[in-house]
Amino acid sequence: MMTRRMRTERDSIGEMEIPAEADYGIHTARAVENFPITGITLSHFPELIESLAMVKKAAAMANRDFGRLTPEVAQAIISACDLVIAGDEHHDFVVDMLQGGAGTSTNMNANEVIANLALKLLGKPRGDYAIINPNDHVNLSQSTNDVYPTAVRLTVLRACPALIEEQRLLVAALMAKAVEFDDVIKVGRTQLMDAVPMRLGSEFRAFAVTVAEDIERLKEFASLLREVNLGGTAIGTGINTPEGYSERVIRNLAEISGVPMVPAADLIEATSDLGAFVTFSSVLKRIAVKLSKICNDLRLLNSGPRAGLGEIRLPAVQAGSSIMPGKVNPVIPEVVNQIAYQVIGNDLTVTLAAEAGQLQLNAMEPVIVLNIMQSMRMLLKGMAVLREKCIVGIEADRERCQELLEGSLVTVTALNPYIGYAAASRVAKEALKSRRSIRDVVLSEGLMTEEQLQQAFSTATLLGQR
Amino acid sequence: MMTRRMRTERDSIGEMEIPAEADYGIHTARAVENFPITGITLSHFPELIESLAMVKKAAAMANRDFGRLTPEVAQAIISACDLVIAGDEHHDFVVDMLQGGAGTSTNMNANEVIANLALKLLGKPRGDYAIINPNDHVNLSQSTNDVYPTAVRLTVLRACPALIEEQRLLVAALMAKAVEFDDVIKVGRTQLMDAVPMRLGSEFRAFAVTVAEDIERLKEFASLLREVNLGGTAIGTGINTPEGYSERVIRNLAEISGVPMVPAADLIEATSDLGAFVTFSSVLKRIAVKLSKICNDLRLLNSGPRAGLGEIRLPAVQAGSSIMPGKVNPVIPEVVNQIAYQVIGNDLTVTLAAEAGQLQLNAMEPVIVLNIMQSMRMLLKGMAVLREKCIVGIEADRERCQELLEGSLVTVTALNPYIGYAAASRVAKEALKSRRSIRDVVLSEGLMTEEQLQQAFSTATLLGQR
Amino acid sequence: MMTRRMRTERDSIGEMEIPAEADYGIHTARAVENFPITGITLSHFPELIESLAMVKKAAAMANRDFGRLTPEVAQAIISACDLVIAGDEHHDFVVDMLQGGAGTSTNMNANEVIANLALKLLGKPRGDYAIINPNDHVNLSQSTNDVYPTAVRLTVLRACPALIEEQRLLVAALMAKAVEFDDVIKVGRTQLMDAVPMRLGSEFRAFAVTVAEDIERLKEFASLLREVNLGGTAIGTGINTPEGYSERVIRNLAEISGVPMVPAADLIEATSDLGAFVTFSSVLKRIAVKLSKICNDLRLLNSGPRAGLGEIRLPAVQAGSSIMPGKVNPVIPEVVNQIAYQVIGNDLTVTLAAEAGQLQLNAMEPVIVLNIMQSMRMLLKGMAVLREKCIVGIEADRERCQELLEGSLVTVTALNPYIGYAAASRVAKEALKSRRSIRDVVLSEGLMTEEQLQQAFSTATLLGQR
Amino acid sequence: MMTRRMRTERDSIGEMEIPAEADYGIHTARAVENFPITGITLSHFPELIESLAMVKKAAAMANRDFGRLTPEVAQAIISACDLVIAGDEHHDFVVDMLQGGAGTSTNMNANEVIANLALKLLGKPRGDYAIINPNDHVNLSQSTNDVYPTAVRLTVLRACPALIEEQRLLVAALMAKAVEFDDVIKVGRTQLMDAVPMRLGSEFRAFAVTVAEDIERLKEFASLLREVNLGGTAIGTGINTPEGYSERVIRNLAEISGVPMVPAADLIEATSDLGAFVTFSSVLKRIAVKLSKICNDLRLLNSGPRAGLGEIRLPAVQAGSSIMPGKVNPVIPEVVNQIAYQVIGNDLTVTLAAEAGQLQLNAMEPVIVLNIMQSMRMLLKGMAVLREKCIVGIEADRERCQELLEGSLVTVTALNPYIGYAAASRVAKEALKSRRSIRDVVLSEGLMTEEQLQQAFSTATLLGQR
Repeated sequence: MMTRRMRTERDSIGEMEIPAEADYGIHTARAVENFPITGITLSHFPELIESLAMVKKAAAMANRDFGRLTPEVAQAIISACDLVIAGDEHHDFVVDMLQGGAGTSTNMNANEVIANLALKLLGKPRGDYAIINPNDHVNLSQSTNDVYPTAVRLTVLRACPALIEEQRLLVAALMAKAVEFDDVIKVGRTQLMDAVPMRLGSEFRAFAVTVAEDIERLKEFASLLREVNLGGTAIGTGINTPEGYSERVIRNLAEISGVPMVPAADLIEATSDLGAFVTFSSVLKRIAVKLSKICNDLRLLNSGPRAGLGEIRLPAVQAGSSIMPGKVNPVIPEVVNQIAYQVIGNDLTVTLAAEAGQLQLNAMEPVIVLNIMQSMRMLLKGMAVLREKCIVGIEADRERCQELLEGSLVTVTALNPYIGYAAASRVAKEALKSRRSIRDVVLSEGLMTEEQLQQAFSTATLLGQR
Repeated sequence: MMTRRMRTERDSIGEMEIPAEADYGIHTARAVENFPITGITLSHFPELIESLAMVKKAAAMANRDFGRLTPEVAQAIISACDLVIAGDEHHDFVVDMLQGGAGTSTNMNANEVIANLALKLLGKPRGDYAIINPNDHVNLSQSTNDVYPTAVRLTVLRACPALIEEQRLLVAALMAKAVEFDDVIKVGRTQLMDAVPMRLGSEFRAFAVTVAEDIERLKEFASLLREVNLGGTAIGTGINTPEGYSERVIRNLAEISGVPMVPAADLIEATSDLGAFVTFSSVLKRIAVKLSKICNDLRLLNSGPRAGLGEIRLPAVQAGSSIMPGKVNPVIPEVVNQIAYQVIGNDLTVTLAAEAGQLQLNAMEPVIVLNIMQSMRMLLKGMAVLREKCIVGIEADRERCQELLEGSLVTVTALNPYIGYAAASRVAKEALKSRRSIRDVVLSEGLMTEEQLQQAFSTATLLGQR
Repeated sequence: MMTRRMRTERDSIGEMEIPAEADYGIHTARAVENFPITGITLSHFPELIESLAMVKKAAAMANRDFGRLTPEVAQAIISACDLVIAGDEHHDFVVDMLQGGAGTSTNMNANEVIANLALKLLGKPRGDYAIINPNDHVNLSQSTNDVYPTAVRLTVLRACPALIEEQRLLVAALMAKAVEFDDVIKVGRTQLMDAVPMRLGSEFRAFAVTVAEDIERLKEFASLLREVNLGGTAIGTGINTPEGYSERVIRNLAEISGVPMVPAADLIEATSDLGAFVTFSSVLKRIAVKLSKICNDLRLLNSGPRAGLGEIRLPAVQAGSSIMPGKVNPVIPEVVNQIAYQVIGNDLTVTLAAEAGQLQLNAMEPVIVLNIMQSMRMLLKGMAVLREKCIVGIEADRERCQELLEGSLVTVTALNPYIGYAAASRVAKEALKSRRSIRDVVLSEGLMTEEQLQQAFSTATLLGQR
Repeated sequence: MMTRRMRTERDSIGEMEIPAEADYGIHTARAVENFPITGITLSHFPELIESLAMVKKAAAMANRDFGRLTPEVAQAIISACDLVIAGDEHHDFVVDMLQGGAGTSTNMNANEVIANLALKLLGKPRGDYAIINPNDHVNLSQSTNDVYPTAVRLTVLRACPALIEEQRLLVAALMAKAVEFDDVIKVGRTQLMDAVPMRLGSEFRAFAVTVAEDIERLKEFASLLREVNLGGTAIGTGINTPEGYSERVIRNLAEISGVPMVPAADLIEATSDLGAFVTFSSVLKRIAVKLSKICNDLRLLNSGPRAGLGEIRLPAVQAGSSIMPGKVNPVIPEVVNQIAYQVIGNDLTVTLAAEAGQLQLNAMEPVIVLNIMQSMRMLLKGMAVLREKCIVGIEADRERCQELLEGSLVTVTALNPYIGYAAASRVAKEALKSRRSIRDVVLSEGLMTEEQLQQAFSTATLLGQR
């Protein structure tokens, strides 16, 4: 076996051998040893790496403009950041997403990779930190405690449009079914019991409306993440930053990212408070809760094919069983249900971590980041498969809907205005017992005229005005 | 308005006026002012008050035997405790269950009431603490930090038999239905889709078995609560107790209560660790999860009456709707579902509080106590109404079960050994499409003989050996 | 024993004896038997009862205007509602808050009490339902499924101003401390380790700011509850209502309550969706999480009095221990921590119940209502005691802050711009090891001049611009 | 670009092209398309794949012995399973862990890979399913509904010993510190306030004891997973299995795996009930809660280095800050805290999924499996780093402990037996106010003699008997 070529780096703990061709350095290497927890490294979330590089670029520009970095060094750092933002050079972001240290290892991984990329651009060897230093140059006027939360917020904000687009497509698909099924009249059910008549289209319209509402909520709650503490450095006092730096670097970041970030009103509060993540996670939970309810309903309405409700048919996307021939299962709604349970569990993890902040910092942010990013991804994927593999292919079983409606007693509510609740209850009971229709019982008992019945059972009365 | 007669008490904070006829004292009065949180006072849980008095009695006996209390004072305290254990004099346990101070206010409420009751027994006025002092006599050789957890554990242990009895009755009721419905053959369903035939009796037997399993779990997990730290006083070092006191007082307590309490192996660990409550709460959660699943199933099987599954009929216990005449809803399972959600939420609260222990104590025990006791009560009540108002009155709709079974294709699985999974799948698909029976398709395609079909569709094959 | 006088009522289940002097009727009586779960009855939440009466009044007015009720009957109902709104006649709201039936028993309890009160106003005996009927008159054009959610939303909205006022007072109290402690310089800490200098005032200002932010969130999230489904009746189709009824009754309700309620965009969606409660509960959780973090910090900063941080002193509100003389504990923050754990647990219960909606209704709303209302109350009470019994009496230990600051090495960060991160690390390490000050090491090693040190250690540099 | 060679497979949905060299087949390929959710495929959990192969092997042996498979086919399947059990051929287990279909896709992935491996062993081409068919041969006498839960339970049981070993090592490391620090006397704290004296060794001994207790709990709770439903096939009725098959196949599985699996008492109950997973997850949560409490304490005791408690020093494993020179943070406890939050969140996901079972099956098992396996892994890794990188290197700051103890008033409790609680309170208050020692105040006020004080302050009195 060949010996791997190594270089030596040192920090306040001591020396360490780093693979010669690695762009990361000693801080990263120690973190890799310290946190072998999930196997999910930073490179699994390129959107986070890109956001980190945007922050580093914004800082380098501000440091240059305030005269803290020479133009040459600043330019090298900026160019290195651009490489990372473009999606290159992510392979050396090797720290586990779950880490102690409040994100310091993530920040140092970025500082080291960017320093070494910048050195390369200047034609210098890796590790030649006298020229470009991860701490003194790349991290200049910064602390993990402002860089990391800012990059995380930016990441979430940059990921929102795709999620919203998926929500929109889902709403459109549901609404198309609402239109398609508008003329299918069926039994509406409350508490799983036959209630009053309704349109199948209205059922799907309600799904569409409820998902659509979440788009507004997601936008509102995400906007809370636009407030960042960049420039506050260690605890929000802005130690080691020139006057005016915070405003400048945040403006730079907004320009670079295209996301309208703004300074938090109180940088000390903003450094320890993760309330905006609690709120954002709760909107993901809300989306999950609603998707789960919709999927539960789809599975109920699809139940059968013969011994269930059977009002709709979900498309068959795979054989349902390894033993039961011909069985087709609602596998897509089922996976969305499970995504929902995961998102709800993740929200609890976020809550626990947010509550654990102490004094001037919340050191538990990494687990918050991991959970929010995973939840966003799962919801994105889940909504996509739900739409593509399920909603668009749903068919109504019109005959079944008709048959169940006719066999039911759900029109009896319309008799209240004519004969009162108590008499109507007796009619319903008698009809159920004797297996007759409401009409039959009413007429045979002479409670209403044919005309009255016709009026009571008119579509407008039963289904409401449009 | 008449002026209420008052007496003056004092503590390290200062003086305070106490209603003259109150058996509680200044520590209780301050706590009432400090914790006006839920309005749920100690007196809502007489079982907790009794357990506290048992601990106080056990301590008085031990202090007497170790020569720390005079026989007269000890006897007065013991007699006062007996009054409280008998269920009298609970009205002055007025502190809110939710309180800061790690239970100190609960302990002091007990110390003060018992001191004043003992004074009364000695013919002395309330507040004459030179003779019997809440701290120096009633609380002698004790700290809130060992008394409170011990009393709480004892309370839970004393409440378990009633819960177990209710579980047993529920199992018996479900098993009676299992027997009653043993000859009802019906469609078994997986993933809400028609699967293979089964007995309705087996469905109820599975409910009975799953509840029965929890009886064992509850007993096992409760037994972990038998280990107590009584005698450890402030932090488990046993400061201010005579040698041998811990063993003695715990033995006394076991005798008084009839519950086999034992000393914890490490009193320091036992003083701060609430792991046994986490575990006990998790078994309550497990019970809740199972009851919820059973109730979900009951509601599904009962759905209709015409446009649902309708295989069983839950008894009508109230009119179901204020507007829909004759509607009967599954209100009992619904309330049990909600109890389950509350118990699961309470379990989270217990978890959060257990995690919040710091150094030598967990100050968050009061919220743990409140949640565990409420969950136990709700489960007790919920299982009782579920049995009495629902399970015992459930009827099978035999015709409906038969009709759904015959209309279904669930016998197709039995063809695998004869024609293979792929051919059986084709048969199922064809039968569904052409609305024919499996038998029909198999015979018309000449895939099996009548004899083979008969064998394949025999009860033993389809439903398993008994 | 005297026999209680009874009257007989009947419903679709059969007959039942009702206490003659009870204003409730048979539906309520059955519910009391069916749901003996928590012992917390409707009358514990007068604000909910009042809201129900407001809805009933709004409906009676609309029914009168649409000619569905005679002016006499309408007026009697309206007057009865006014009595209930005024806070009278709540004693017969006896149903348990935790109930099956999606709130039907709550609605019927209101219908029956209002009917009997109206009968009394007309000089008729209780139970004379031919004249004023709970279902046909009081509940006219209504269903539990629109009345109950509407009343609940109204209740929450009516309870918000008090909560917001308590938040405002808490913010003001914290801000007063921020001003009072503005000149106290102390060690800022991240990850519990000495970090950089800061003002004690800034620490309290951050508390104030974080609580203040929640006021905005609470308002925003509460406003989502303004959309109601009143007029949708059973499932949102508006069956049994005259055209234009929904808009009218909601307008009436807004006028009666002074709360700007509006019709939901899609009444069918609004009937089954509880997303707004998920969101509202999550803002309560957010408030709880932040209060818990603040209380954790207060307890840390107050730790001691001699062997802890001891930077502040919380006021003594009760003796801390039953055994340790003179001990004073942070009991108020502790109870707020526990409130937070309860609110977080309650939020989970709300989530579980919200996810359990099925088809056209969510039958699990009662447990949602109970949990949200309890959480609101506990937060209200908790913030009040936190302010009154803790925040306003907090004192800074200026000497201690000074002493800790001077003994610490937290000024070292300010050296970075002069000597770089690596050299500064060596200085810090040396100072710690040799128990010297940063200044000492820097000067003795000739790393910086006195002048540079003075500049680096200036207040503006260390604490940031104001 | 070269065209990838493909083969055609078909199922009841239609035809599909499969890469020619893939050992998986059409069912797997469809699942890959349907479930692109987390990117975490089966191959990330080799222990699960091995368990699946063990089940398949046990079934092939039983089917051979019952004459259902020819010796040749059985042998080929068994040999293929042996390859997988040995850890080879896992690369084609490509389905996402999060999937709909109750594990069918996992089961079919195994069936297909094993069928194709067996065909290869027989010298046949992939896909030649007439000879060895994934359903008719590999899955013979099986259903996903018994295979999947059985394999999952086996996986957890096989993973437990490593977890227990890690717990044991952690206990040993903590106990070693207990011994090392046994002579360090320090301030014990309750509610973060100075309480009574204790040994630092006792503090670490309590950590050791509390972790050790969990080993017993883990064993107990894991043993509940030994009951499996293998042989129950689709819903527990054992359809398509020969008489005696269930006992035989489970006995085979126990022999193959070395794990003493036993048949569940009621196969129908066992097929839908996931209570054992709820319980097992709750013990993982319990472990997490305790580890989190320990890590919170370690961080508190380590706080400083100058302005905190500073009683212990955690080893420095990486530079703590990107901006604050020389700062060393407790990063290892911090990552363990975060693991705990994740495990608690995962437990909620497990609970939600367990509650979602319907009728004869719980379709949500895949998300349960994913969460339990991730939690087990994280706890394993977390305990390892906690021990290796933190516990073994902890040092006591003996001087600091001594200094804090002497400056404190924690000996005052020992005065109660001599002067009573009230007088002792006055002493404590006076000492605190006047910055004197307890001894000083007592002697100057003539409350006790020197001799009495010596007795009261003796080690045995203050620290308890050993």
